[in-house]
Amino acid sequence: MINRKPAAPTPPMGWNSWDCYGAAVDEAALLGNAAYIAAHLKDYGWEYVVCDIQWYEPTAIDTCYNNFAPLCMDAYARLIPAENRFPSAAGGKGFAVIAEKIHAMGLKFGIHIMRGIPRQAVHSGAVTKSGVPARQLALQYSLCPWNTDMYGVDHRQPGAQEYYDSLFELYAAWGVDFVKVDDICNTEYNRENPYAAEKEIEMIRKAIDGCGREMVLSLSPGPADIRHAWHLAAHADMWRLTGDFWDERQKLIDMFRRCELWYAHVGDGHWPDCDMLPLGRLCVSDRNTHGRQCRLTEDEQITMMNLWCIFRSPLILGAELRENDAFTLSLLINRDVLAVNQTSSKNRPVISTDKEAVWQCEMPDGAAVVALFNLTETKRTVSVTLRELGLDGKYTLFDLWKQKAIGEAETAISAELNPTASVMYRLIAR
Amino acid sequence: MINRKPAAPTPPMGWNSWDCYGAAVDEAALLGNAAYIAAHLKDYGWEYVVCDIQWYEPTAIDTCYNNFAPLCMDAYARLIPAENRFPSAAGGKGFAVIAEKIHAMGLKFGIHIMRGIPRQAVHSGAVTKSGVPARQLALQYSLCPWNTDMYGVDHRQPGAQEYYDSLFELYAAWGVDFVKVDDICNTEYNRENPYAAEKEIEMIRKAIDGCGREMVLSLSPGPADIRHAWHLAAHADMWRLTGDFWDERQKLIDMFRRCELWYAHVGDGHWPDCDMLPLGRLCVSDRNTHGRQCRLTEDEQITMMNLWCIFRSPLILGAELRENDAFTLSLLINRDVLAVNQTSSKNRPVISTDKEAVWQCEMPDGAAVVALFNLTETKRTVSVTLRELGLDGKYTLFDLWKQKAIGEAETAISAELNPTASVMYRLIAR
Amino acid sequence: MINRKPAAPTPPMGWNSWDCYGAAVDEAALLGNAAYIAAHLKDYGWEYVVCDIQWYEPTAIDTCYNNFAPLCMDAYARLIPAENRFPSAAGGKGFAVIAEKIHAMGLKFGIHIMRGIPRQAVHSGAVTKSGVPARQLALQYSLCPWNTDMYGVDHRQPGAQEYYDSLFELYAAWGVDFVKVDDICNTEYNRENPYAAEKEIEMIRKAIDGCGREMVLSLSPGPADIRHAWHLAAHADMWRLTGDFWDERQKLIDMFRRCELWYAHVGDGHWPDCDMLPLGRLCVSDRNTHGRQCRLTEDEQITMMNLWCIFRSPLILGAELRENDAFTLSLLINRDVLAVNQTSSKNRPVISTDKEAVWQCEMPDGAAVVALFNLTETKRTVSVTLRELGLDGKYTLFDLWKQKAIGEAETAISAELNPTASVMYRLIAR
Amino acid sequence: MINRKPAAPTPPMGWNSWDCYGAAVDEAALLGNAAYIAAHLKDYGWEYVVCDIQWYEPTAIDTCYNNFAPLCMDAYARLIPAENRFPSAAGGKGFAVIAEKIHAMGLKFGIHIMRGIPRQAVHSGAVTKSGVPARQLALQYSLCPWNTDMYGVDHRQPGAQEYYDSLFELYAAWGVDFVKVDDICNTEYNRENPYAAEKEIEMIRKAIDGCGREMVLSLSPGPADIRHAWHLAAHADMWRLTGDFWDERQKLIDMFRRCELWYAHVGDGHWPDCDMLPLGRLCVSDRNTHGRQCRLTEDEQITMMNLWCIFRSPLILGAELRENDAFTLSLLINRDVLAVNQTSSKNRPVISTDKEAVWQCEMPDGAAVVALFNLTETKRTVSVTLRELGLDGKYTLFDLWKQKAIGEAETAISAELNPTASVMYRLIAR
Repeated sequence: MINRKPAAPTPPMGWNSWDCYGAAVDEAALLGNAAYIAAHLKDYGWEYVVCDIQWYEPTAIDTCYNNFAPLCMDAYARLIPAENRFPSAAGGKGFAVIAEKIHAMGLKFGIHIMRGIPRQAVHSGAVTKSGVPARQLALQYSLCPWNTDMYGVDHRQPGAQEYYDSLFELYAAWGVDFVKVDDICNTEYNRENPYAAEKEIEMIRKAIDGCGREMVLSLSPGPADIRHAWHLAAHADMWRLTGDFWDERQKLIDMFRRCELWYAHVGDGHWPDCDMLPLGRLCVSDRNTHGRQCRLTEDEQITMMNLWCIFRSPLILGAELRENDAFTLSLLINRDVLAVNQTSSKNRPVISTDKEAVWQCEMPDGAAVVALFNLTETKRTVSVTLRELGLDGKYTLFDLWKQKAIGEAETAISAELNPTASVMYRLIAR
Repeated sequence: MINRKPAAPTPPMGWNSWDCYGAAVDEAALLGNAAYIAAHLKDYGWEYVVCDIQWYEPTAIDTCYNNFAPLCMDAYARLIPAENRFPSAAGGKGFAVIAEKIHAMGLKFGIHIMRGIPRQAVHSGAVTKSGVPARQLALQYSLCPWNTDMYGVDHRQPGAQEYYDSLFELYAAWGVDFVKVDDICNTEYNRENPYAAEKEIEMIRKAIDGCGREMVLSLSPGPADIRHAWHLAAHADMWRLTGDFWDERQKLIDMFRRCELWYAHVGDGHWPDCDMLPLGRLCVSDRNTHGRQCRLTEDEQITMMNLWCIFRSPLILGAELRENDAFTLSLLINRDVLAVNQTSSKNRPVISTDKEAVWQCEMPDGAAVVALFNLTETKRTVSVTLRELGLDGKYTLFDLWKQKAIGEAETAISAELNPTASVMYRLIAR
Repeated sequence: MINRKPAAPTPPMGWNSWDCYGAAVDEAALLGNAAYIAAHLKDYGWEYVVCDIQWYEPTAIDTCYNNFAPLCMDAYARLIPAENRFPSAAGGKGFAVIAEKIHAMGLKFGIHIMRGIPRQAVHSGAVTKSGVPARQLALQYSLCPWNTDMYGVDHRQPGAQEYYDSLFELYAAWGVDFVKVDDICNTEYNRENPYAAEKEIEMIRKAIDGCGREMVLSLSPGPADIRHAWHLAAHADMWRLTGDFWDERQKLIDMFRRCELWYAHVGDGHWPDCDMLPLGRLCVSDRNTHGRQCRLTEDEQITMMNLWCIFRSPLILGAELRENDAFTLSLLINRDVLAVNQTSSKNRPVISTDKEAVWQCEMPDGAAVVALFNLTETKRTVSVTLRELGLDGKYTLFDLWKQKAIGEAETAISAELNPTASVMYRLIAR
Repeated sequence: MINRKPAAPTPPMGWNSWDCYGAAVDEAALLGNAAYIAAHLKDYGWEYVVCDIQWYEPTAIDTCYNNFAPLCMDAYARLIPAENRFPSAAGGKGFAVIAEKIHAMGLKFGIHIMRGIPRQAVHSGAVTKSGVPARQLALQYSLCPWNTDMYGVDHRQPGAQEYYDSLFELYAAWGVDFVKVDDICNTEYNRENPYAAEKEIEMIRKAIDGCGREMVLSLSPGPADIRHAWHLAAHADMWRLTGDFWDERQKLIDMFRRCELWYAHVGDGHWPDCDMLPLGRLCVSDRNTHGRQCRLTEDEQITMMNLWCIFRSPLILGAELRENDAFTLSLLINRDVLAVNQTSSKNRPVISTDKEAVWQCEMPDGAAVVALFNLTETKRTVSVTLRELGLDGKYTLFDLWKQKAIGEAETAISAELNPTASVMYRLIAR
């Protein structure tokens, strides 16, 4: 199946509600950010609008989880949007109205789901669409460690595949284009099997293939285990290579090791995922703070963009976009940088130490793009020789952020870089 | 608290329903076995009658568990006996009538409980006696891996200690003398803390101390972690040093290593527990087999008795006693062998290899008792020198099972032993 | 350095003395097998002749190691060939004469070395070429677990890089084209650092780059740790992805999981290595058996060739070539199969279960090659759909071993396969 | 063998050269400290004078090790004292003259040895007394991680037991009373077997039993693995329960957990060992500092003495005794405190939290001794009830350090304690 027609031929670009709305996203937030994307970002390739976790919980009002809260569920043990938060779901319409509006903007619509079957369904005696009681499908020790909503589904039970089929039948009917499945990618907390969620991934793949609608399958959270790279690539379109990424310098530095581990698996519709970009205005639903600005410095934000792009990670925005400032917006509309993310190949590290990194890729016209990164907290000159880049000849260095030629190279490329800063150059043969 | 007045000054002796009735024990089985003990075994020291797991589940009819089955629960989220299985529980009497009858026979009454709070209470919105909702007390990822009844109780929550207090208040009112708490002793499946159940043990200790009735506290399943020996001894009266023991030669052989690990912690009211004795008629509630006889050879059964006794393990019978044959009964009424279990001291291994073991202890009158074990599957002569036993002089060897002098020893003791056989000698100075 | 000009642009093909001569290889064996290659195999691409371990030990006469045996060493703590086994080494000529003869046959010459510095040098007070005593360079706890010859070299010591430089200066002078460095790739037994040999790999890379002669760098033994794939690719040309491979069915089956783990790292001069091909006459220096024939069935041998080729592993023969039978030789001279190994791209698994595997690659002309493998011990029909292969259209299936068209495919490819058998088809568009 | 006549019926008391002389101890240091003990400490029970590591290395002049330094060795691959440091060893007398002088002072003499056979013997072709070459006995991967002198001895080799026998024959001839064997007790760095040194311990036990002289066997370094407590007790007299202890508050605090782990194994000639007491003047052979005073506060030093005594650890002094100040000396000559160490029983923790500890024991006359410890860095009142101590009645509290009654107790004992301070009370019934 690694050859299946890719649902995401290039790294998906879009927006997700988690970083700004946590568990409390609602219809207005979704549609408001969608409208912003349509107006300001669509033209640059941004297209997915993804509703993250807890949309089925009426009591979610914050960034936190409410343990064992009652959930909205249909007659077949399927979770449905809470009408108090998503009014258009009234009358059993689910996400169909929202999806239709987003499609009308020329965008695509995604939802988040937790792997498994609601514990509420299991303990209340609910019956799934195929007639099998929910309690027969639950794998009782297969829990999410940070969320109380679900039990894992035991693939050995009759009715298990049918339950997942019934879910994706519903999502297809709603018009969903992208599904982020959570609690499925990093499975270290599962006792029986070192890769216990494997079977749920396979059931979901099969359910998507049979649901009659193309959907991007995104797996969270990471870190995914590299030993299962083949299985991930065979079944999913993107999967997380770390735990949750946030606006902290150390997490940014750590990402270099993760990208180094996964770079050979990038491309051809398979996108190891560095997680969302926590830019701009974040955590606006936090009851204490009512939101904050991204804590990364401007240099760090550019370094993040450079790494995500030259690695070809999916680009999923975490900001409340309507509060973007000029700098934040500028990071999202640089066509040259985005082209590296969307069109380059042979992406790979060339130098990698604790103190610096150099990555290289090739553009469709054959030109090399090289990014130099200072990973330290002091100024540092980072250099790479043309020999190390496998190149010879003379080149003009075109800085993709400054949008101008900044020098020439005959034997090596050097840049004096601020703490955690980086540059990305296109090499133009002379 | 390691100095608290011991509830079990000597290793507890009794009967438990698990090995013969599994999850399906009922009132008739309890009282029938109690009557047998009163008639045939009480005089030899056997006194506890313990009702094992699932007494609160109306649908339990077998040795297996029914995942997510409805449970009988009172208004305060406390499990109570299923009336269809324990008719005397009608009218809210719980186990009080049964306890009274067993007390009237001159015996003591015990029950099994699972650590934690019923998931059914959590998901149905039940409220505990202190007014705190069950859902606030549940530690969602603290699960028993083999039983779906409970969530662990989070000791950090207000109402947690009060919940355990309310349980033991009820058990004291019923007249319970012994509580076997399960899913609490071997805690390897708990994620957060290498000894996560520690806090539940402490809450239970405190609840017992405050309930107004003396109760023996027995912790299962094993293997307990030797690194927590101090904590176990400080809070419990007995704790399992292995996983479930059954009538298999290999489990018997393994027990020698376990006893070697724990021997220094035996005594003064602390009883590392080798688990129940699966003798006689077992598994009578098994729907397929309707029971079977103990699969250990007679030599293996004697070896089991010898090890349990010279190690001073609790002695808890697993048989349907009313079907005892003469050999099985003979194992339970040898006063000399039982005296080793109940009264000896300085119990310790003297020789321990893959092929043989020798254990030694001292009786109250100063006489040495020595057990020689053949751990192989062929005949073998096992020997120990008096020097290795720290003895000198001349001794007559009195065989505790044959009940006669079988020889003399000046420098060493030897016995030619059948496969997995053993002898236990009292050394009488000449 | 991942872009350095590859010393091995395609997977190296050749012969190594280990599988047939163990520790006892000598000049006659080397030159005899080289002559065979020149006469029978060179035309098909086989070119390296590699002298494996213990060539510096006069007392090696078998497949076993002699602990702490005296070794031949020059004045600079460098090991040199034992003259009793390599007479042409007399007069300080080392391997130069042998290399010259092999070069004259149109072939290339390789040697095996152990990472580190001889313990004999350390304990006898020897001094390295840079003037630093051997004892100052030894990292005492950095041992090979299965060979007593060396201590690891501590890269933090002055003189450490110079010692490795002095080694490769010598090897370059001899005319060495290929170096298999042992005890360096699977580093699980090193205590201090999860990837302790990393620094020795870096010193060796630097020594080769500075020695003035191109050499292929091959690292053993495996399994290499996938987390260090980037470092391996940056410094070496090939590295072992398993422990020693021998002619056992289970090792062959296991290789499928290994190849699945590593497939994304194949190509562009980087060759994860499935280890030598234990074909034909093996272990001829074994003092007890005086050799034996490969124990794999013919089907298993073809499966081995198919996997090694479609994965693009290096192909290094283990046989005493002069005793090849017709079947063995036939495995080595199939130009179509070897072309898959040497020229294909996009090599990847398509189906992978416990019972079967399907691999696919693309030939330079765009044609797909597909291999179907039966991993069970019974007959089995293995199938793959064209959709799973990412193909549509109609194809003629050309069997690369039978060298004839065996059928056509419109929707799927199927083959009924004997136990552990496989087929490899070229798909010719109709 | 756990019943063998104990070589150390009570915890050994003495002095060891390591803390003050490191690898550079010499004859003058040994005899000088011995004379001090004879004059000032012998009357209080201090008796062993132990020469620690590297006495066979002529070049040792410091607290550090010299990797691969030449060692003094006799004709049978046995290490002997370096004459430049131990002049009385001239003429092949070894330690006999020193032992005789120490015996003449009424004291006992001990030496340190490393487990194994000298690497120098292995690599130089030496032959052991039984005629077996040293190289045949060496287990090449069984190394000490911090010292380059030895290889482990492979117990499966003929001549292995004979080699150890030849060592102890020599030590017995010298008059050695105590052997501290190093690199043998904490064996985590051994690859093959989780308790790889087990066989060397057994060979040493057998060698001592056969050498004709009683010797205390002390095993280092820790932490010993509690799972092997039985084996340690069966073969050794004392064994380390931690890594090296030094004068650091955190190491002192950690010791409480270690003692809690091991308390049940104390007594009857078996002494889990808290390591040397780093009191007074330390590290006098350090080339940079020329020594320093113990860095523990006076309260911490008393807490150390209280714990070592109420746990019944061996008491081995680390000081250059001739530079003792009055406070240091006062810690060593309190007969009541030393009597707790030498004569008490039922030693056990009663309270144990992160913040405080209470230990209790019973003196030969039945009186309880109780120690209260403040484990925090602030003032704290530590209390224990008589019920927790298993006592009732009224008691006068006699402070063993102040040597006076300091109050009475009817229901509880309390003490307001400075940071890391402690008290030890004898409870005198009123």
